[in-house]
Amino acid sequence: MTYCLALALNTGLVFAADSRTTAGVDQVSNYRKLHTFQWPGERVFALLSAGNLATTQAVVKRLELDAADDEAETSLPGVPHMSAAAEYVGSINAEVQNRQGGMAQQGMSFEATFILGGQIKGGDPELSLIYPEGNHIAVSPDQPFLQIGETKYGKPILDRMISPTTTLEDAARCALVSIDSTMRSNLTVGPPVDLLIYRKDSLVLDREIRFKMNTPYYASLRKQWTEGMRRVFDGLPRFEWEKQRDEG
Amino acid sequence: MTYCLALALNTGLVFAADSRTTAGVDQVSNYRKLHTFQWPGERVFALLSAGNLATTQAVVKRLELDAADDEAETSLPGVPHMSAAAEYVGSINAEVQNRQGGMAQQGMSFEATFILGGQIKGGDPELSLIYPEGNHIAVSPDQPFLQIGETKYGKPILDRMISPTTTLEDAARCALVSIDSTMRSNLTVGPPVDLLIYRKDSLVLDREIRFKMNTPYYASLRKQWTEGMRRVFDGLPRFEWEKQRDEG
Repeated sequence: MTYCLALALNTGLVFAADSRTTAGVDQVSNYRKLHTFQWPGERVFALLSAGNLATTQAVVKRLELDAADDEAETSLPGVPHMSAAAEYVGSINAEVQNRQGGMAQQGMSFEATFILGGQIKGGDPELSLIYPEGNHIAVSPDQPFLQIGETKYGKPILDRMISPTTTLEDAARCALVSIDSTMRSNLTVGPPVDLLIYRKDSLVLDREIRFKMNTPYYASLRKQWTEGMRRVFDGLPRFEWEKQRDEG
Repeated sequence: MTYCLALALNTGLVFAADSRTTAGVDQVSNYRKLHTFQWPGERVFALLSAGNLATTQAVVKRLELDAADDEAETSLPGVPHMSAAAEYVGSINAEVQNRQGGMAQQGMSFEATFILGGQIKGGDPELSLIYPEGNHIAVSPDQPFLQIGETKYGKPILDRMISPTTTLEDAARCALVSIDSTMRSNLTVGPPVDLLIYRKDSLVLDREIRFKMNTPYYASLRKQWTEGMRRVFDGLPRFEWEKQRDEG
């Protein structure tokens, strides 16, 4: 399994991903799920992937090949806007899966899901979730984040904390906590954690950080969060009978 | 959907459940999912239910009928120990579902899952999760809680806070927070929330509370939790570049 998320704030975009890949309990390894493509000053893209590893690798490889090929019909450096980029990634995704069609009928799943975000000069930053079927949806201002993979454990903290006015750094911290909660509750989501922060209109991806569990900042964030939750928990209101007992 | 959970502490058991039942988005209603059976001084049982409402109601009705029937082959007042009680509930569950077998083949699901807890005089309090197939598992001291229904949103807080030495009241507060987080993230889980606290060896169920969203205690707990989380979040460590910016 996997857990990736991306947040769309008024001031930019935040991307975060775990790195664990499992194919059965005795085949656990680490693969990067955050992929970036940039033409500084012109356009930047970040892609988060979940699902079949062969499919996601084939899609990423194809994006790289097309980008390097001046004669490619469509490519990330060539698409006119972010929505066309999402459509392009979606069509490659569906195409790669269709090649395995025969096996899929035997009960194997080659599905992959992506989150694509970025900005093209002249346009706004955008974020889309691309389904295995190739179609996509944009993020909504009412719920300015998208998640793929093992999404439920880490959703409550996002629901409580995130709005479009959240700062990039607060959103990044929230994403790290969301992934930490997921890793504690589900073994198939694991470190290192990749984080990318994109400031609107900068048109460059220059703030990408990889956190291991013992990276000082991440260790300290996790510790402070756990201790803080415990403090809040210990301070929750007593039941009526506890007060009487304490007084009696 | 549904969210129910039960916790096994050194000093007793805690049960909590939401009340929302949905059969499609235009058929939403409230049904009690916490059912109690007690013979004070002798034995007490609490049953939490998730899944097909007709199945769970049929199982509960059958438990009531058997308990009132002196000639019933097995019954809650007659079982020798908690494990036999779980097996008895499991066999009724499987039997009720099998009656609908023909429909199940047409793609309808009549499955139900239960958590059964309680204590029989002379034995210890016990907690079991009963599967749709009728078999059951006991709670583990390493993870002293069981959940059924929409379990993922509310699990991180339990993973962080609950151990066998947690007090009954702290466990009850944690269960209320866990359900609150789930209700915020998933529309099919909703109030009122039923809470039952059982003190080990008391052999009586005398602490059962129903919380609506505006019940003063629950409203205050939810408010304090939300505000406390926000405070902890705002106090999380800054990134290196934020510190430089603040100093600069």
